[in-house]
Amino acid sequence: MGLIMTRLAQQLQFLVEVDKLKRVMRRTRLVADPPGAESRFENTAEHCWHIALAAAVLQEHSNAPIDTARVIRMLLVHDLVEIDAGDTPAFGVQGDKAEREALAATRIFGLLPEDQRTEFTALWNEFEARETADARFAHAMDRIIPVFQNMSNNGGSWVDFNVARDQAQARFQPVRDGSYALGDVIEKLLDESVELGYLRAK
Amino acid sequence: MGLIMTRLAQQLQFLVEVDKLKRVMRRTRLVADPPGAESRFENTAEHCWHIALAAAVLQEHSNAPIDTARVIRMLLVHDLVEIDAGDTPAFGVQGDKAEREALAATRIFGLLPEDQRTEFTALWNEFEARETADARFAHAMDRIIPVFQNMSNNGGSWVDFNVARDQAQARFQPVRDGSYALGDVIEKLLDESVELGYLRAK
Repeated sequence: MGLIMTRLAQQLQFLVEVDKLKRVMRRTRLVADPPGAESRFENTAEHCWHIALAAAVLQEHSNAPIDTARVIRMLLVHDLVEIDAGDTPAFGVQGDKAEREALAATRIFGLLPEDQRTEFTALWNEFEARETADARFAHAMDRIIPVFQNMSNNGGSWVDFNVARDQAQARFQPVRDGSYALGDVIEKLLDESVELGYLRAK
Repeated sequence: MGLIMTRLAQQLQFLVEVDKLKRVMRRTRLVADPPGAESRFENTAEHCWHIALAAAVLQEHSNAPIDTARVIRMLLVHDLVEIDAGDTPAFGVQGDKAEREALAATRIFGLLPEDQRTEFTALWNEFEARETADARFAHAMDRIIPVFQNMSNNGGSWVDFNVARDQAQARFQPVRDGSYALGDVIEKLLDESVELGYLRAK
């Protein structure tokens, strides 16, 4: 009973700690409603919910067979390092991101019992390495939603960071790496965004 | 190709629409940091992320065998009806909640291709009915996190709604229905909350 309570206490402490992800702000804004209306910046926790749901909905478009349940678990934990390391802007300076995030992973996943610490650390490392089909599809989910958010916000963070089409192209390459069908959608939306002045042509 | 694009377009339209869940505000506040400090109200999207992750972490404490991946899918979609129907306060007037949520489910899940509409509607109905082990454990996750949030906020919504211990007890019964171990934790926290003046003793 003692051991069980210790284990449960660790798990609950972790779940209380991760509440802080709701305070980490991203550079993307909520989908504007109506389009063009002012909308607030998004936080990382609600973003993670959105892309986990996106994986459930879009799974059939993966280039390679995936374990959707694993992709969803990966997406639920992949941004927890931001609690300590912060959100690194897509088009801003990356700095010592890898180092900060590795320290964060050690501390945050370290709150869990060893088996779960191992599982979540492995899922996060797999996401970062982008070598498996599950990780590639997870990255596609992470990247695709902000395109719709930016387009509804008159270009959103693309305008804020004065982004050119080829920079956006590079940023959204993971969508195509995970799904050709979704990559095609992104291609059209980036063309449209150049025409609308949301992205610089060069 | 035409049919595939129509299907993908429906899925993307759904994913853009559900962004609105980030605007639905609950009566619970983020875990205060430090305890007792002012913290903002929580929205339903970030809450759904938190409890989906809770299911991944706490699965072993379920009273009955569950399919954790299914519980997580259920939790990702179970609150989407709030986009139209709003959050119904735990301790406030329930009104015509069931009717409003049924209409919302028809509209929101109706954006999806038929097979996914059927799956998500069934998951939502199963959650609401609380008859399966998966639904019972999902309810336990939905209820347990706010206890920690309220306790860190000097009673939070319990003080806002002047809640008595027996009301809280009834509200948190689903935690025990899903997990005796977690029910025991809640029991102790409710006792502590009475002592601290967060809950009325009678």
